[in-house]
Amino acid sequence: MRITEIREVDVPLTGAISNAVVSFEHHRVSLVAVVTDVVRSGRPVVGVAFNSIGRHAQGGIMRERMIPRVLGTSPEDLLDPVSGLLDPARVLTAAMRDEKPGGHGDRAAAASAIELACWDALAKIADEPAYATIGRRFGQEPLAAGVPVYAAGGYYRAGEGVAELGAEIRSYLDAGYEAVKIKIGGASLTEDLRRLDGAVTAAGGGHRVAVDANGRFDRATAVQYGKEMAGHDLRWYEEPVDPLDLRGTADLAAEYPGALATGENLFSVPDVVNLLEFGGLRADRDILQMDAGLSYGLTEYAAMVDAMQAHGFDRRAAMPHGGHLINLHIVVGLALGGCEAYPGVFQPFGGYSDRCEVKGGLIVPSDDPGFGLEQKADLAPHIEALVGRA
Amino acid sequence: MRITEIREVDVPLTGAISNAVVSFEHHRVSLVAVVTDVVRSGRPVVGVAFNSIGRHAQGGIMRERMIPRVLGTSPEDLLDPVSGLLDPARVLTAAMRDEKPGGHGDRAAAASAIELACWDALAKIADEPAYATIGRRFGQEPLAAGVPVYAAGGYYRAGEGVAELGAEIRSYLDAGYEAVKIKIGGASLTEDLRRLDGAVTAAGGGHRVAVDANGRFDRATAVQYGKEMAGHDLRWYEEPVDPLDLRGTADLAAEYPGALATGENLFSVPDVVNLLEFGGLRADRDILQMDAGLSYGLTEYAAMVDAMQAHGFDRRAAMPHGGHLINLHIVVGLALGGCEAYPGVFQPFGGYSDRCEVKGGLIVPSDDPGFGLEQKADLAPHIEALVGRA
Repeated sequence: MRITEIREVDVPLTGAISNAVVSFEHHRVSLVAVVTDVVRSGRPVVGVAFNSIGRHAQGGIMRERMIPRVLGTSPEDLLDPVSGLLDPARVLTAAMRDEKPGGHGDRAAAASAIELACWDALAKIADEPAYATIGRRFGQEPLAAGVPVYAAGGYYRAGEGVAELGAEIRSYLDAGYEAVKIKIGGASLTEDLRRLDGAVTAAGGGHRVAVDANGRFDRATAVQYGKEMAGHDLRWYEEPVDPLDLRGTADLAAEYPGALATGENLFSVPDVVNLLEFGGLRADRDILQMDAGLSYGLTEYAAMVDAMQAHGFDRRAAMPHGGHLINLHIVVGLALGGCEAYPGVFQPFGGYSDRCEVKGGLIVPSDDPGFGLEQKADLAPHIEALVGRA
Repeated sequence: MRITEIREVDVPLTGAISNAVVSFEHHRVSLVAVVTDVVRSGRPVVGVAFNSIGRHAQGGIMRERMIPRVLGTSPEDLLDPVSGLLDPARVLTAAMRDEKPGGHGDRAAAASAIELACWDALAKIADEPAYATIGRRFGQEPLAAGVPVYAAGGYYRAGEGVAELGAEIRSYLDAGYEAVKIKIGGASLTEDLRRLDGAVTAAGGGHRVAVDANGRFDRATAVQYGKEMAGHDLRWYEEPVDPLDLRGTADLAAEYPGALATGENLFSVPDVVNLLEFGGLRADRDILQMDAGLSYGLTEYAAMVDAMQAHGFDRRAAMPHGGHLINLHIVVGLALGGCEAYPGVFQPFGGYSDRCEVKGGLIVPSDDPGFGLEQKADLAPHIEALVGRA
């Protein structure tokens, strides 16, 4: 088997929203197709993936560095010698040739889209959902009956206040979610606490509400928010300080009694190991949110989960950033703690296909082959335009 | 004053060489021109810079994200309100709009080329060498009489052994250098020690020789090399482990009595602060090698030097990676410890212009305006092709 072509296109996100740090108005995501010479139903199998959500399209790095390296590698060097099929880890190694260690930023997202598309191709070749391929490869029993999912929303919108936030949260409960996340840090502490109180009331308790500061706070502000929120019994307090502020994270973990969550802006095993070694996180409560789609793909992400376990964390403490079909299959396949969802925003990549049911706080994957991206109605036309008559 | 246009082109490096980790055969560097509406001698002032050496060209990120952001910002928002001239820090802020925290990789190099070109423009407007502009801005007395420089070479070349390495080092001494650096980790320990012995003999003592493992070693190998080299009184032992392996760096610092050097693959203040807080480095001997051209430019780099001083290091412990004119002006202007040079490789970016003299182990900057890149014979045609009739 060999890769005959790798195509990429960048697709704009619709639904202009802002968190405490950035606007997503101009965000684009790289959609990637890895075309193979394996034929199923008279057509070549094409693996499809994208570089999650939130860190920009990476067409330049793919076109100028990674795609030529992969296509310039002898096909047999990209195969698992046992199965004779594409080995995503070997494809990643080829994509990363002549890259120095350190500096895990944009290239991690570029590599991930290519690596993840290989997993989609493998699952399509096996005619099974990606979670089955992933579970088998990493020795886990997939959670095919469904995994916990929460609705991430509560963005700041001009002209909207606590009443609209409450209505938004009730709409999530009506849609089958039992937990939500809202943003903090985009308004004053007083205003944020009013919003939080409204959210807790609408959701039916602090244990159903997480808050997300998107790394905006300095250490003092993070501690101040923590003190004010300590009595709320929140699900978690996410990215209080800069994602790389290990000392600040450790200081807050020593003071804040509830769960902290972080990791979505760490893109390599060495970065995650530093967080685990020096960030003061507590294995009995804290949550790690690394995202395979931003972090060189599933090969590196699975090694991050191994590092978590080596530091005493349960694999259910892994709840990836990025609410979409690829992470659903990874969470199910690796038997992790749960998924995010972004109802109504970050389209066409965010969320799940109509064939995935949200019920009783769980999301259930469909049994479509691969990640099932072709079954997501608003994403399908982009895939068709990219894949065409491959 | 305003920026009228930002142009970029990627230029291949000549001189195919390899360190322990990567080949530079396909490396390219982004050359950037920031065109302004300030006129000197009848022509618009154009700031020119590049994203150092070693981490690839970044045209995609510049074209797709950063250049449109900078050109889309109101010109007055890019100016220092006191001088009325371009403020590189404000240009950087504009280039980084809608970028999330964390993930300091390729985009750090993209931003740096743009930010550094602004410093070149400011110095050209003042009709002075860039080190004068930099020294004034950061309150330092420039070391205009020259700064220490060492020759970084000793790469592995097929068919060459200890004899050729000794000849290479003697050629550096003949050219005015008094210190050198060679690679380790690309051969067996036994072979590397033979090479090191040859280098020490040729250089006239271990205190004139540094060794560089390019982050290749695991912790055990790093310690083993350290034990074997401890008696050599080397200048330093560079990047023994992965640049983000804080625990490994700290463990080695606790065992290896000589100086360690690292930091060239850390691209942000938070990454450097983590190294300073958790990497176990010793302020009385170790060397930090961050490179403004890979790290969002001089604004961020100067803050890294501040962080070093806040952790007890002298600013002379800063010796940037990247032996070229831009870093020469930064070292002179910020009164740092010294420069690297790569005689004969990494052209046309590596090294200095003929107007910069190497003598008695020092490199002396010329007084050409800006970074003086136009005075470097092999780089000048690339600049002329990019700037044209700006």
